Amino acid sequence: MEHTLSKSFNILENAHIDQPKGFIAGGIHAGLRKSKLDFGWIYSEVPASAAAVYTQNTFQAAPLEVTQEALKHSSQLQAVVVNSANANSYTGEQGYQDAIQMQQLTAEKMGIDPSLVAVSSTGVIGEMLPMDLIKGAIARIGESEAAADFEHAILTTDLKTKHIAVEVEIDGKPITIAGAAKGSGMIHPNMATMLSFITTDAKIEADSLQQGLRQTTDQSFNRITVDGDCSTNDMVLVLANGMQNNETLHPQHPEWHRFIEAWQFVSRELAKMIAKDGEGATKLIEVTVEGAKSEQGAAGMAKAVVGSSLVKTAIYGEDANWGRIISALGASGIPFDKHGLSLAIGPEQIIQDGELLSFYEPNCVKELVKDTVHLFISLKEGSEKATVWGCDLTYDYVQINASYRT
Amino acid sequence: MEHTLSKSFNILENAHIDQPKGFIAGGIHAGLRKSKLDFGWIYSEVPASAAAVYTQNTFQAAPLEVTQEALKHSSQLQAVVVNSANANSYTGEQGYQDAIQMQQLTAEKMGIDPSLVAVSSTGVIGEMLPMDLIKGAIARIGESEAAADFEHAILTTDLKTKHIAVEVEIDGKPITIAGAAKGSGMIHPNMATMLSFITTDAKIEADSLQQGLRQTTDQSFNRITVDGDCSTNDMVLVLANGMQNNETLHPQHPEWHRFIEAWQFVSRELAKMIAKDGEGATKLIEVTVEGAKSEQGAAGMAKAVVGSSLVKTAIYGEDANWGRIISALGASGIPFDKHGLSLAIGPEQIIQDGELLSFYEPNCVKELVKDTVHLFISLKEGSEKATVWGCDLTYDYVQINASYRT
Repeated sequence: MEHTLSKSFNILENAHIDQPKGFIAGGIHAGLRKSKLDFGWIYSEVPASAAAVYTQNTFQAAPLEVTQEALKHSSQLQAVVVNSANANSYTGEQGYQDAIQMQQLTAEKMGIDPSLVAVSSTGVIGEMLPMDLIKGAIARIGESEAAADFEHAILTTDLKTKHIAVEVEIDGKPITIAGAAKGSGMIHPNMATMLSFITTDAKIEADSLQQGLRQTTDQSFNRITVDGDCSTNDMVLVLANGMQNNETLHPQHPEWHRFIEAWQFVSRELAKMIAKDGEGATKLIEVTVEGAKSEQGAAGMAKAVVGSSLVKTAIYGEDANWGRIISALGASGIPFDKHGLSLAIGPEQIIQDGELLSFYEPNCVKELVKDTVHLFISLKEGSEKATVWGCDLTYDYVQINASYRT
Repeated sequence: MEHTLSKSFNILENAHIDQPKGFIAGGIHAGLRKSKLDFGWIYSEVPASAAAVYTQNTFQAAPLEVTQEALKHSSQLQAVVVNSANANSYTGEQGYQDAIQMQQLTAEKMGIDPSLVAVSSTGVIGEMLPMDLIKGAIARIGESEAAADFEHAILTTDLKTKHIAVEVEIDGKPITIAGAAKGSGMIHPNMATMLSFITTDAKIEADSLQQGLRQTTDQSFNRITVDGDCSTNDMVLVLANGMQNNETLHPQHPEWHRFIEAWQFVSRELAKMIAKDGEGATKLIEVTVEGAKSEQGAAGMAKAVVGSSLVKTAIYGEDANWGRIISALGASGIPFDKHGLSLAIGPEQIIQDGELLSFYEPNCVKELVKDTVHLFISLKEGSEKATVWGCDLTYDYVQINASYRT
């Protein structure tokens, strides 16, 4: 079951990844990209409990291996360094050694243990990291103390930075949870299909943090799709440095659910920003399936709709071609009774209990011209539901991806 | 295992669906489309053994129900009528009655039993068949006796007609197998994702025909993908009228494999024509995976590559972005040892046994500028292999599908 947001937290206006107490972030231009920022870091004043989830792609890039090893060492991190423009993926033993060196030099520069440093890369696959540029960048860590620079430095073909922070009172302490993300291409439901960093000043053990990360990721980053592709490099990483000195949080803590709710909101808003800023996208598409036998089934059907190239192009064309939605549901591979199906585009009901209504198409078009298009699907199979997000498929997606490296 | 074509058959130049003895086909403009042909028929002088495979979409359109009932009745057909522009899908009880009427009026016009008539529709989902136009068209059956008109009448956004015929000697008789198809959008692996009609003058029982259809379809129409969508209307239908009076064919017949080989060729060439004429496509992409544990696994991995939007756009851009191929393989969900992976774009080897080679990129580009682009993937898992076909993703795909109904 999904939780309805009761908003027992406050959204902080124009807040960044460094909003929680004790975090600093920055970014610089290291020269991997022509002129845009391309190297960033996050630093916590004290070691933080940490957890991560990783791409399910068979080819996990070298930085993911190095980060996993760091987390296995102590479940603690104090810093994260990220470069864009080069994924350090499919780079063999040399790539692994480069990621290790990136971790070690950062640790030296910061005066902390290498096992407290996570590394992350995003960009082209199969090219060696330009280590001279990386080394030069590491030497300059601290030059920027603007978290917005970090948020810019992690982007690839993204058009906008993605960041958010909320405050939630736990045990009378003002706990902050913040997040920054990059997305754009290769965004697909089966986890870890983007880079996302979450920081919080809550005190929480690593095991509980890992559990919270799985739970919040499942209903946020695992619920978006841009193009059905799934990258070799993506992960969601969370650092909780405990600097608010709250009573340690865990799933049996009376305020755990409020904490998760606030975290869920952060992750979900980042996920929606990623979908909306999908390569070439002009619209966010939100698909809800309810009345399903299982939440997983509901999510699967919703993803089939939001992942259909024909639905995506129809929505780009602001064409109420509902037949494509039906067809995508039917092709989802998830069985359901078609006589119990209802469908609405925005407020306009098109199918009710399997019967096609004589709906008023201009009302659908009113929804389709919006920045966010809502599709509602209802079944008579059970009481589970899920919402997923995606974007339309446009000329610009083709343009961006036909010439990505050139 | 796939069979290597030893070509124990002859390809007949410029031959159509009416090439086998005793078949007539034609098509006219019934007024469902503005000016293009939109209504076609195939007629056999005598009742023919018949078999079909259908879309796996939950929402099977009305004409498929009616055709299935006809085949259940006697496993014989003598005629097929097809309209384009309207799919008669998601049209409820009225749509079913319309398909029945289309079948019955055709039978009356031809003077045969309604159970010998298959009906088929393709086009927009959710609009009622304009029965006045359909009735008018049925009254004009026989006006055209050009099989090329049939091949035009079944098209939607296809740019070219798709037809082929081969001759294979069985028991000293010159057996002909012919096929015509339409494809374009909504073409995806899980069968029956287009309309395809196969005719032959071989004598063969319906059970054996069904078995042959499954076998040939699995390695042809089930091996192509255009956009990952799977339609509500698609089927492959085969009619064998026995007019060559050969000894009845069946799987134990000594010449069965030669017959299947010729049929396989017809189906595979049609499938490739469909992939090549995918909406907006400029190139045919052929992906072979060998050294796999199972043929199904090999096909699954090859489909993951040819179905990846990022691979498709890179090939459109003639960009040797092999990292996207690797990423698609890794995201296929099919486990394999990455140290045994080899990859070539055309003749240029890029990865050998998991090691990235210092390949010469202009040699890749030489392959990428061709009309047909070959990707070869080799594993060290087993001895099974599969080849699949797809097409590139272009501006025109978006253009066609953003404005299909307008």
